[in-house]
Amino acid sequence: MPRPGLLNLITDVPGLLVGHVTDDTVRSGATVLRTDGFWAAAVDVRGGGPGTRETEALAPENLVGRVHAIALAGGSVFGLAVADGVVAALSAQGQGLALKPGSPAIPVVPAAVLHDLGNGGDRAWGLEPPYRRWGIEAVAAAAREFALGRVGAGRGAMAGHLPGGLGSASLDLGDGLVVGALVAANPIGSVYMPDGHTFWAWPFEIDGEFGGHRPQGHAPVVDPLPEASRLADLGRLQPGVNTTLAVVACNADLSTAECKRLAMMAQDGIARAVRPAHTPFDGDTVFALASGAQGLGDGRARAVQLGRLGSAAADCLARALARAVHEAARGG
Amino acid sequence: MPRPGLLNLITDVPGLLVGHVTDDTVRSGATVLRTDGFWAAAVDVRGGGPGTRETEALAPENLVGRVHAIALAGGSVFGLAVADGVVAALSAQGQGLALKPGSPAIPVVPAAVLHDLGNGGDRAWGLEPPYRRWGIEAVAAAAREFALGRVGAGRGAMAGHLPGGLGSASLDLGDGLVVGALVAANPIGSVYMPDGHTFWAWPFEIDGEFGGHRPQGHAPVVDPLPEASRLADLGRLQPGVNTTLAVVACNADLSTAECKRLAMMAQDGIARAVRPAHTPFDGDTVFALASGAQGLGDGRARAVQLGRLGSAAADCLARALARAVHEAARGG
Repeated sequence: MPRPGLLNLITDVPGLLVGHVTDDTVRSGATVLRTDGFWAAAVDVRGGGPGTRETEALAPENLVGRVHAIALAGGSVFGLAVADGVVAALSAQGQGLALKPGSPAIPVVPAAVLHDLGNGGDRAWGLEPPYRRWGIEAVAAAAREFALGRVGAGRGAMAGHLPGGLGSASLDLGDGLVVGALVAANPIGSVYMPDGHTFWAWPFEIDGEFGGHRPQGHAPVVDPLPEASRLADLGRLQPGVNTTLAVVACNADLSTAECKRLAMMAQDGIARAVRPAHTPFDGDTVFALASGAQGLGDGRARAVQLGRLGSAAADCLARALARAVHEAARGG
Repeated sequence: MPRPGLLNLITDVPGLLVGHVTDDTVRSGATVLRTDGFWAAAVDVRGGGPGTRETEALAPENLVGRVHAIALAGGSVFGLAVADGVVAALSAQGQGLALKPGSPAIPVVPAAVLHDLGNGGDRAWGLEPPYRRWGIEAVAAAAREFALGRVGAGRGAMAGHLPGGLGSASLDLGDGLVVGALVAANPIGSVYMPDGHTFWAWPFEIDGEFGGHRPQGHAPVVDPLPEASRLADLGRLQPGVNTTLAVVACNADLSTAECKRLAMMAQDGIARAVRPAHTPFDGDTVFALASGAQGLGDGRARAVQLGRLGSAAADCLARALARAVHEAARGG
């Protein structure tokens, strides 16, 4: 039976490192996922208010379809500068495309941001928002072990009306394939069922990784705008740009187009862990990465394996989402 | 609190009629949704193996973005001819675009099909597959009340390894807005949790509409390729083209682009009711229709209402999926 990997983190996928920068004054942060090579990648955007960079380079019909890193940040549009820092840092280390001798290495670093500007942090940054610098620092911090909860790109996040955060989970399929997910959880919807303490993701929980609550009451879920969602407030209270930013990764030899299917299936993990999801106000964005280490074979059996990986990626993402909020509530 | 409409069918949305043709010899059928005007519409395709017609006409950036009917059928590619019959029947009644005096009325009838060719029915149709004729007959059969289960486009469907079928559900939001869903459920994934009898959609069930089972055991869901899914068999047993075809509808004044968001959010209903969903082998396709009868206002409040409708559409679709399989099991 499949089991979480050693760390129950996306970095159980060999070759992947994660680094956070967390600023408690700004109440924001950044998270970088760094690959040990030029990994196949794709992205699937399903929210109505996304903030992204270099996503078009990942379309299966376009040229690149591979990445050296993925950068996530708070800060809404200001946060997109995180990728400037990551690009500079990786290039300085010689990581990137070498198109011409003597030219700087050109790293491919897609990025996505969530909106945390309304959380009361200090944004008196004038002409120097900190996100570019944080990109450089996050590359230096990248490691296999990393914290969950109110850290990195999840530092300033909200999940419905509750603190959001940074979550991760992994699944070792037992046959050499490993899948993982990382998420910065800032959804407008609620991660809890109407009882207020059972995660929507409860069926997928392994070993009490997000508290072990199970549904007791059986009231039907009929209100499409639950109180625990911020959607009900949007008309009267606050501006809202809300987003679940996610990365799923595996060690299979997926093409860019297959990574796209992985990202699409992984979106179902958001659907299962958050209600409502994919609203006009969310920026739900899922990146998918594949290291290429494990061959999947070909033909129909390959497509079956891709479906299996996609199903595992959706489960990991649902678990990571619940872990993000669970760890945030623990002050993690 | 929102409640199902009078019939708990998509036809609780005023102006919508549904007609089935069911053939127990061919073990297939067709279902037509007929509007009482030229309704705004969009489509969202998320499966890896779709079979569709006239979907490009519904892209928000294209010209038409409205429909006179939606046609669903079994029969894989042969089933697409159902739209020929619907187009002919509606035009003969004078329904359609009148571009020039004396020209026939031009109905806009997008269609989608599911694969049921492997279910042992009689397909010795040579040069005359029955789907075009069924399209004509389904238009004639269209009514507010219609059957669920092994009927229409769901007649030959399978849900995982169990009989699939045709389902529907509605939600009256209590303020004049009504949402409904109709689905032909032929997913490769399972609609049941690992206990084998609790629908994934159970949290959304209203008044025992699909049997009232609740989860008792709490074993974690870790196998990405559950036995109750056909995905595990694909490598060794059978060809597979598997699909959840759905239509969601409401009575709001949505634009084509807003219908697209409604369809996108409704896909989450498939994600919540079926696991795995949106695999390379599914053709998951959701159409969204809006009659325009109820104004939603404008600005941010309008987008909030759109999110509310999308959330309700996802719930209705999850309920309709469970009802399809529940009614199919009852021999409905």
